[in-house]
Amino acid sequence: MVGGGLTSFIGPVHRMAAGIDGQIELVCGAFSIDPVESIETGKSLFLDPKRVYKTYPEMFEKEKNLPPDQRIDFVSIVTPNHVHYAPAKMALESGFHVVIEKPIAFSVDEAKSLKKLVDKTGLILALTHTYTGYPMVKEARNFVKSGKLGKVRKVFVEYPQGWLSKALEKTGNMQASWRTDPKQSGMGGAIGDIGTHAANLAEYITDSTISEVCTMLNAVVPGRMLDDDSSMLVKFDTGATGILLATQVAAGEENNLSIRVFGEKGGIEWRQEEPNSLVVKWLDKPKEILRAGWSYLSDDAKAFIRVPAGHPEGYLEAFANIYRAFTKAMRDYKPGKKINPEKYDFPGVDHGVHGMTFVSTVVKSATSNKKWVRIK
Amino acid sequence: MVGGGLTSFIGPVHRMAAGIDGQIELVCGAFSIDPVESIETGKSLFLDPKRVYKTYPEMFEKEKNLPPDQRIDFVSIVTPNHVHYAPAKMALESGFHVVIEKPIAFSVDEAKSLKKLVDKTGLILALTHTYTGYPMVKEARNFVKSGKLGKVRKVFVEYPQGWLSKALEKTGNMQASWRTDPKQSGMGGAIGDIGTHAANLAEYITDSTISEVCTMLNAVVPGRMLDDDSSMLVKFDTGATGILLATQVAAGEENNLSIRVFGEKGGIEWRQEEPNSLVVKWLDKPKEILRAGWSYLSDDAKAFIRVPAGHPEGYLEAFANIYRAFTKAMRDYKPGKKINPEKYDFPGVDHGVHGMTFVSTVVKSATSNKKWVRIK
Amino acid sequence: MVGGGLTSFIGPVHRMAAGIDGQIELVCGAFSIDPVESIETGKSLFLDPKRVYKTYPEMFEKEKNLPPDQRIDFVSIVTPNHVHYAPAKMALESGFHVVIEKPIAFSVDEAKSLKKLVDKTGLILALTHTYTGYPMVKEARNFVKSGKLGKVRKVFVEYPQGWLSKALEKTGNMQASWRTDPKQSGMGGAIGDIGTHAANLAEYITDSTISEVCTMLNAVVPGRMLDDDSSMLVKFDTGATGILLATQVAAGEENNLSIRVFGEKGGIEWRQEEPNSLVVKWLDKPKEILRAGWSYLSDDAKAFIRVPAGHPEGYLEAFANIYRAFTKAMRDYKPGKKINPEKYDFPGVDHGVHGMTFVSTVVKSATSNKKWVRIK
Amino acid sequence: MVGGGLTSFIGPVHRMAAGIDGQIELVCGAFSIDPVESIETGKSLFLDPKRVYKTYPEMFEKEKNLPPDQRIDFVSIVTPNHVHYAPAKMALESGFHVVIEKPIAFSVDEAKSLKKLVDKTGLILALTHTYTGYPMVKEARNFVKSGKLGKVRKVFVEYPQGWLSKALEKTGNMQASWRTDPKQSGMGGAIGDIGTHAANLAEYITDSTISEVCTMLNAVVPGRMLDDDSSMLVKFDTGATGILLATQVAAGEENNLSIRVFGEKGGIEWRQEEPNSLVVKWLDKPKEILRAGWSYLSDDAKAFIRVPAGHPEGYLEAFANIYRAFTKAMRDYKPGKKINPEKYDFPGVDHGVHGMTFVSTVVKSATSNKKWVRIK
Repeated sequence: MVGGGLTSFIGPVHRMAAGIDGQIELVCGAFSIDPVESIETGKSLFLDPKRVYKTYPEMFEKEKNLPPDQRIDFVSIVTPNHVHYAPAKMALESGFHVVIEKPIAFSVDEAKSLKKLVDKTGLILALTHTYTGYPMVKEARNFVKSGKLGKVRKVFVEYPQGWLSKALEKTGNMQASWRTDPKQSGMGGAIGDIGTHAANLAEYITDSTISEVCTMLNAVVPGRMLDDDSSMLVKFDTGATGILLATQVAAGEENNLSIRVFGEKGGIEWRQEEPNSLVVKWLDKPKEILRAGWSYLSDDAKAFIRVPAGHPEGYLEAFANIYRAFTKAMRDYKPGKKINPEKYDFPGVDHGVHGMTFVSTVVKSATSNKKWVRIK
Repeated sequence: MVGGGLTSFIGPVHRMAAGIDGQIELVCGAFSIDPVESIETGKSLFLDPKRVYKTYPEMFEKEKNLPPDQRIDFVSIVTPNHVHYAPAKMALESGFHVVIEKPIAFSVDEAKSLKKLVDKTGLILALTHTYTGYPMVKEARNFVKSGKLGKVRKVFVEYPQGWLSKALEKTGNMQASWRTDPKQSGMGGAIGDIGTHAANLAEYITDSTISEVCTMLNAVVPGRMLDDDSSMLVKFDTGATGILLATQVAAGEENNLSIRVFGEKGGIEWRQEEPNSLVVKWLDKPKEILRAGWSYLSDDAKAFIRVPAGHPEGYLEAFANIYRAFTKAMRDYKPGKKINPEKYDFPGVDHGVHGMTFVSTVVKSATSNKKWVRIK
Repeated sequence: MVGGGLTSFIGPVHRMAAGIDGQIELVCGAFSIDPVESIETGKSLFLDPKRVYKTYPEMFEKEKNLPPDQRIDFVSIVTPNHVHYAPAKMALESGFHVVIEKPIAFSVDEAKSLKKLVDKTGLILALTHTYTGYPMVKEARNFVKSGKLGKVRKVFVEYPQGWLSKALEKTGNMQASWRTDPKQSGMGGAIGDIGTHAANLAEYITDSTISEVCTMLNAVVPGRMLDDDSSMLVKFDTGATGILLATQVAAGEENNLSIRVFGEKGGIEWRQEEPNSLVVKWLDKPKEILRAGWSYLSDDAKAFIRVPAGHPEGYLEAFANIYRAFTKAMRDYKPGKKINPEKYDFPGVDHGVHGMTFVSTVVKSATSNKKWVRIK
Repeated sequence: MVGGGLTSFIGPVHRMAAGIDGQIELVCGAFSIDPVESIETGKSLFLDPKRVYKTYPEMFEKEKNLPPDQRIDFVSIVTPNHVHYAPAKMALESGFHVVIEKPIAFSVDEAKSLKKLVDKTGLILALTHTYTGYPMVKEARNFVKSGKLGKVRKVFVEYPQGWLSKALEKTGNMQASWRTDPKQSGMGGAIGDIGTHAANLAEYITDSTISEVCTMLNAVVPGRMLDDDSSMLVKFDTGATGILLATQVAAGEENNLSIRVFGEKGGIEWRQEEPNSLVVKWLDKPKEILRAGWSYLSDDAKAFIRVPAGHPEGYLEAFANIYRAFTKAMRDYKPGKKINPEKYDFPGVDHGVHGMTFVSTVVKSATSNKKWVRIK
């Protein structure tokens, strides 16, 4: 693991998620730019001190020289956005598969460069767009793909949070600080941090691509350097249209990612905060609520459910599902063989490039007076 | 009553709503352009046959010549949009107060002309923007006005319906036919029929005005002549921003008008389909659910509640609240005295003019490539 | 109307409910044992002063001597429980149909006596077990009767309120005072006031009868003379079993009547506070939510719905449905012809007798150490 | 681990739950009475084949003779009910701490015997009453204990499931087979399997004990040898009263454990299927919804939350919390020192004895004609 020291939010999440299925064992890490924190973190995780490294270059160097049955299979990169590219690149070049926290990189160019490396090495890269790991999101995707709604017409996806309603970045809050700092976060604030999740979710479920946007970005909290509030009208390459909103100043909201998709025959609705239900509304028959754990679900969803209906699974299990799919792909991996993330159902390097392009286009278009802008 | 014959949807709604409080008695009407239907309707309502008129001009002519204690106090106009202006004008000129179904008229010019007449005669005109009649909407307005949320930052208002997902207008459905016909409905389809309700609700609760819009209108169902789907980014004159959507092709949706308003300290949420709850989310304390009928509510809301908490009131009672406020104003009316609808809390002629301007601006802007358009 | 003066809760409810459909006109009343309050009430209702009576005997005496086209068709009795029997008896003896607020009388004997009178005169008596007036309750009944759930196994019905959590009767609260006074309310407190509604709802939906009970009654608030909290295990004559609870000390609850019925194939669930939904859970397919106003509903429900789906109807409309069915029966009434309330779908005198027997049996059994007691 | 082979439901749940926090490593097991299945299970878990044992006596024998830094610290017993006592006894006698799946044993006597052994050895025994592991259940307990509701008056706890609505035990379903077989399950069916969870939850949250019951047990599905449906009136030692129901024939229900507690000032409500919310209803102010992850929660709850608000945690995390508390106790353990489960907040041997007594009393009382039976 690269990053994920004692003060990290997402580091422990990766570790818990990776631990659930008993398929992955954490054996080494470079957990912080502060070597002391790295060592302390390793200690708290019962790691062999020899494999708690001071820097990630040291880690890759040493690990790749270990015997195959001892060295790591892959690395999880959970640093702030501006430190995604370099360790990912080094990992691939050292022959390791990679799990990388979203966004894949700091810029479109970095993302494209990683894609080249993945294509060249044939190694596996998974991007933790966690929310597509939820079984009922997979059911939603299956529902749409199987044509039950007819042709998709409208997509409303939104991601309201409230935690940046005040200038937390000025109070020493680490999570707020790097996210509102263009140097660490990149050109997007809310749009990059959570807007990409919203876009990815909409594209995943509808199996289509956002092709045009008409955008409004705001920095609502005075003094903030990046957008903390974004909304846009969107067009999909299939002809569907809709709305995407991602805001971090919806005071009182937790992590309320939700999506509604309407087709000719009905609509579906999913909310991350109540993730085990999928609401289906029909044009001419009663509303249905599909629930995780039932035998009537598609195999796409069932493959990612651990417990019977009525035993709620949550965020960590969704996260674990990215690791589950990635692990399955790793087991199938053979040098020279091309792994298709779509087959295993995890987000790969292409999603990373697309996400960076999306953010970049949105940010540029926000200040333009041109109504519609194409995402290329 | 003008309009509201046997096949009407909104006519009976007006009659039921007006009947709840026992303050209003229906005594005469011109219920249809078909004289036979008008007579049949009158019969079904136990009216004196002499006061069931074949045309509204005849009605106004005869009624105004009755003795004051026998003739009507006011008229309710519940015809399709293109027959709002003429009877309203005639009613006012005949000395009668007017309740008029929304939209107030067919064009901005007609609306402005009615405003002049109201200003000149001093008579009362109420516009049935029903949804602001709900007590918990009044509580929401009070909540925002009293500053509990701090400065308003974001407003998300939406009005999804699904009933026009198919080309019902080609199957003889009366409600669908006139609403999708520019000659009867006006320049707006969904935006005029329900978008104005959404805009009115947002402006009512936030006590502010939508000043700029960036719009997408679609005619999703093939062959439809007016928009059946609209969405827009909006800016308010207070600096708040948000989203407004109104669609009639969200297959499976009923009448799901809902609004969320976020300020510096928290947010509120109200849904028409569960109208007796007002959800309040706070930045730093537990979410609250305010419920109709409790003593902790503001007087603004309490004045419009009929039964104790837990005895749900619905659409007809909200409708009745427009009539309740209007009736109170009529009782206070004296010739020469100016009645202010705001004081009684019902939508008046100014809302009518503003609504027409809103629709007209939105429709014009939709085809423009200019991003933001000002509403004047 | 007998009772329903200015301080009454249920009197105005009857008047509003009766007014919605435009089929009933209030023309006279004896609204209070206080003649001044009766007169004031009549004035506020715009009644002809000559028909605002000081006592109900006077009313019946005078009204029955009016010409048929002027005199009342029926009377609504909305007095406290101990003044139900005498006016009802007098009304029937004077040739008038009767709507009577639940419970039908003060004792089983009074109830049986009224039944004899109804049988003898052939006149119509309706009992306002309001909650069976909800369309989705009628749908629930239809659902069970049509066998969709298979044989009914379990019935859980509950009616929690919180308003008597404190000794309101000692603070001058009129509603609390008579309800907690055995001289006005009868032998049952919560069990009589709301427990009967719960029992009636369960029996109505399942089309069966509670045949045995095992009961616990409590007077939770110190000093209270009647039970304010009741719960019981129940057996139905069909073999189903379940639980019934009715309490007025569930602090914070409003009027949360709800029922769940489970059969071999699935279960249904209805809540009065969200009355336009009927939840259906299936053993082997997705949960469904049936909603008022849709074309897929049964005719039993459709006959009692006034507005399209998504326009919520509430308590007053449910109440109005009792009047609607009763009015229909009155129109069909001919002297000598027997009217069957079941056919018109309103609660009649038999429900009244059964309800009184239920309360009487429960109260007697509560203090017994015998586990199960039969309801005869 | 004893039990938890490839066809087990609860075995993998224990393994996943124990794996989340990275504090526990599975190193050995006797997974099945079928040695081949045990070996296959061990293989699938990447265990050292030498530590995959054919029987649990063999396991304890060998493990206790390993050097302290290699041998196990504790054992998890996840076999059917009739195979709880013997391995637990042997584990304690071999010097190992024990986690045992609920119920603790097959009979009250066995339970009491284990208690003696725990008292004698000073070793730690944790019973996986999973549902008290939910953070919002801990918040509920804190809420009640801190007096916010005033004195508790009413407790309604219910646990409806639907999965035994058909005679699954006759179709080869393993989970159904042992649960409906008195020889494997004990004297209680639904009451033992899930009724104890309901009782435990109610007692945990209210910090009181069910002292008297009035019970109805049914075997609803023809041919079933144990109850599949139980309900009872209950009295608590604090004077509160209520209802407990546990049924496995509520067709369509998943795992809908829920509880409502009402005191003098308000009530709380928690549902396992939506476990991250705690609803609080007040007598005189708006309803509140407390949510996992917020800073306003008590430390009792915060100690068991892993992710920020809006990132739902579920059943596995609740389960993991039992392990978390147990692990903490193990770290504090020193021979001769007495560990108090209450301090660490996990269910211990006393809960096991009480649960067995509860089931035994309920089953015996169900067939008695005596109304109230005391739990000793």
